[in-house]
This record gives sequence, structure tokens and C-alpha cells, in this order.
Amino acid sequence: MSNLDLLYEVVFIAMKLLLTLSYMGSNFCGYQVQPNGKRTVQGELTRASEELFGKRCDITGCSRTDSGVHANMFCATVTERGTDSLNSDIPISKICDAFNAHLPDDISVYRAEWRDESFHPRYGVKKKEYLYRIYNRRERSPFENGRSWHIPAYFGESELECMKECASAYIGTHDFTGFSASGCEVEDRVRIVYSASVIRTGDIIEFRVSADGFLYNMVRIMAGTLVMSAKKKLDRESINRMIETKDRKEAGETAPACGLYLDSVEY
Amino acid sequence: MSNLDLLYEVVFIAMKLLLTLSYMGSNFCGYQVQPNGKRTVQGELTRASEELFGKRCDITGCSRTDSGVHANMFCATVTERGTDSLNSDIPISKICDAFNAHLPDDISVYRAEWRDESFHPRYGVKKKEYLYRIYNRRERSPFENGRSWHIPAYFGESELECMKECASAYIGTHDFTGFSASGCEVEDRVRIVYSASVIRTGDIIEFRVSADGFLYNMVRIMAGTLVMSAKKKLDRESINRMIETKDRKEAGETAPACGLYLDSVEY
Repeated sequence: MSNLDLLYEVVFIAMKLLLTLSYMGSNFCGYQVQPNGKRTVQGELTRASEELFGKRCDITGCSRTDSGVHANMFCATVTERGTDSLNSDIPISKICDAFNAHLPDDISVYRAEWRDESFHPRYGVKKKEYLYRIYNRRERSPFENGRSWHIPAYFGESELECMKECASAYIGTHDFTGFSASGCEVEDRVRIVYSASVIRTGDIIEFRVSADGFLYNMVRIMAGTLVMSAKKKLDRESINRMIETKDRKEAGETAPACGLYLDSVEY
Repeated sequence: MSNLDLLYEVVFIAMKLLLTLSYMGSNFCGYQVQPNGKRTVQGELTRASEELFGKRCDITGCSRTDSGVHANMFCATVTERGTDSLNSDIPISKICDAFNAHLPDDISVYRAEWRDESFHPRYGVKKKEYLYRIYNRRERSPFENGRSWHIPAYFGESELECMKECASAYIGTHDFTGFSASGCEVEDRVRIVYSASVIRTGDIIEFRVSADGFLYNMVRIMAGTLVMSAKKKLDRESINRMIETKDRKEAGETAPACGLYLDSVEY
């Protein structure tokens, strides 16, 4: 139990509840609640919170993942609707189990802690890491449906070298306009990519990338571009050019959502 | 291409088609076709074969897995109904892709070869290996639903030692009556267990066991018994006693089907 958790339980101080969770995105229409009432992660968390605490709640997430995208680690705060804090009688040590009892099987809360009212789960993020999984074997795997991008053409040592070389070109402070979907409405598109790696284990190729933030579809375009490089359709120079010209058309196709996992969030 | 495959294509010799496949058992009522018309692996393979070869076919599998049990490796032969061989115009190199185009996403054929008419996919098995997966972390994982047995109580070094010690007691030639479901109708219940191991990787504990054959529910009872040993409810001596007394009541509970995978088949 952290000092803040203790403080919350001994002296009552207004605080936000921060949940850390994982979810499998296959049967969700993304994270964010939608007007059409479709099944979303935020919708399920809101319902569970309101059932647990007996009051209207707001859920604020660290990110807005698309339909079919997964999360090994996702952070979200729970507050009473229209306020910056939550009043709860449930001890912090029982919150995870209580949430999981009210949530469907494809979401699991694995950490709960109290945070200051000023904490913001999205603006406070210092670093995020995404994982993109490719299943690289001729025949599909019944265990990989909706969990990876199936690429039947085998990528051996030489193709992996191309991918690794191109991934390293992502590292640094760059304007990633060329790696964002055309609908991207953010003005400042400069991001700091801290690390980018490609590792093969058996039939799975994992592309990991960490940054201070990501533009819309950025990781999926990066992954699609790496696959183009494995197919020898572009090289490290092409990536430098894409960054320079900021032209989305230079980059590879957008890799499918099902291979993408939000893997780590740091505050 | 093997010599037999070549022989089949050059000189026509009556042969059986042997398929090697994997399947996720979650949405199947087991391997074997059932009179009630429920969805089975054998049923899907029969339908796909008849669509592909344009004739009634028999599918003979290496094993009969229960509802919810998975296979990383499963072998089955395809023959024309009532005969011991199959006549096909499809080149052997195209058979996997052709089958996968006719099969649902939760089955994947990854090898196809011709075998002698005398080959039997069940009686010819020399060695089989099963894998039993336990997900051992307090909170459930959204990615492990239907793929492992969730045990929230943490098994550390000491508990793993108990499991390893007990697993090693399975090795050898024993009468495994005490480790078979009461409905087991086989007369000879002596089996040779070649290897049995327990390994933890992250939150997953894998129990692997190979033998010349297995009795009904044998691996699931073995896995349930290992979990009892981790909970210090029995030890290596108890296992020796279970083998000696042949009393099913001495053994642990039957572990759930969803954690079980047929992992390897040798002829």
C-alpha cells in the first residue's frame, strides 16, 4: 500500500482512483464510448464503476485505442461525475477483485491506487510503449486469430535485418506527419521515439516502439512500413525521406489493428 | 517432398492422406463426430475433405480429445469412405492451403503427406506428448480465457519444487488406473511415461508429459494432482500410493479441459 493509499484510508482526502488494466480488443469497438451504444472498454468500466460505487462516474483513459486493438497495460481514472475525485468505502486492496467481478472476461483490472486530484491519466503520460505482433508462418494458427497480423511469406535473417535497420531510423525527435493517418488533427506532430526494436521468437515477430506520444495510426503505419522493408520495397533511406517530406503516401500500408497492443504507460 | 509423395504422384499407388493440424478446442464439442450434430473437429475435417475431393470421406484421428481441449499437433488420415485409400488430383504441395480455404479459422492444416494403406493414425502412435497450461496470477488475464486453468494463489519456488518432485513420480512403467476417469473402459491400464516436467515462465506454469499412451482424463487428473501438491495437500509419497492402490479417490481433482493441449504425436 502506497503512502497516498494509506493517507486516503486514514484521513479522508479527495483523490482519484487510478486503475491499471488489460483488455483484449477483439470484441470491443475501441476504447472510447460511442454515441451508437456499441460495446467499448470505457463503457464497460463506467457501468462497472457505477454498479460498485452506487453513483454516476466518469472514466478518463490514458489513450484512445481503435476497434480491435489490445492493451497489456492501460491506465484509467475513476471520478464521481463532474468532479475530480471519488469517495469510496471499498478498501483499496479489494478494488481489483471487486471490479473484475463486475467486468466481462475480456477486461481485467490488476492494480488500483489513489492519486492526487491534479493527476491526469492522459496529459500526465511521460512515455508509452506499443507492441506490434506479426505471425510469420505459411499456415495460419488457430491460436492467433485476432491477435496478430498473419504474413505467410517467411522473413529470414536478411529480411529481419532490413526491419531492424528501418526500425532504428524511427528513433529520435522527428516530425512524424508522414506516419499519421490523414484524419490526424493534432498540430504539433513532433514526437520523441526513445526505442524501436524487432525481435523474432519462433513464428512471432515483435516490433516494439516507445515514445513520449504517438499520432493517430502511427504504430500501425510504422509496422506496415517495416513489412514493406522486409519485402525489399523500401529501405532505411526511404524512411528518412518519409520523415523529411512528411508525405503519408511514401510510407507503407497501415498494418491491421489486431496486431497492436498498448504495452506500457509511464507517468 | 518425401519418396512416398513422389511415388504417389509418379506411379499411382493406393495411399492414405495424412494431415497434421492444430486447432483451438474452445468452440468445438471435442474431436469426435457426435450423433447430435454438434460442431466437432472430425465433422469439419469430413466436410472440408468431401468438398475438396468431391466424394464421401472417412477421417481417422490420432486421438479423441474432449470438448474444450486444444491441439498444437494432431494427426488424421483422409480416405475414401469404406476404403483404405484416397485418389486425389490435387498436388500434395497444395493440399494444406486447399484444406485451410475450406476450414474455419480455429483449425489449421500445416502438413500433408501420403502414407501407406497399412498406416493407422491411432494404433500406429509410438509416443504422445501433452501440455497442461496454468495461468498463475491473482487477477485473470483477458488473453487466457479458455486457454489455461486460472489459479489465483501464487506458486513460488517452494510450491514449484513440490510440483516438480511429484511430476517426476509419474515417470516409468505404471498401472495408471488411479489416474483415469471412472468411465475408462480400457482393460490394460499400464502405460510408460517417458518424461514429465514442470516449468514456470512469467505467469504461466507448463506441465508436460509424454507417454506411449494415455488413459481417459489421465493428464487432467495428473495436473489436478500436481496443483494439490503445490497446495501441500499431498506429496511424492501420495503419488506412489495412488499408483499402487489404483484408487482414483486418492488423486486430485480433474483439472479443467481448457488448459490441455495435445502437443506432439510420434509414429
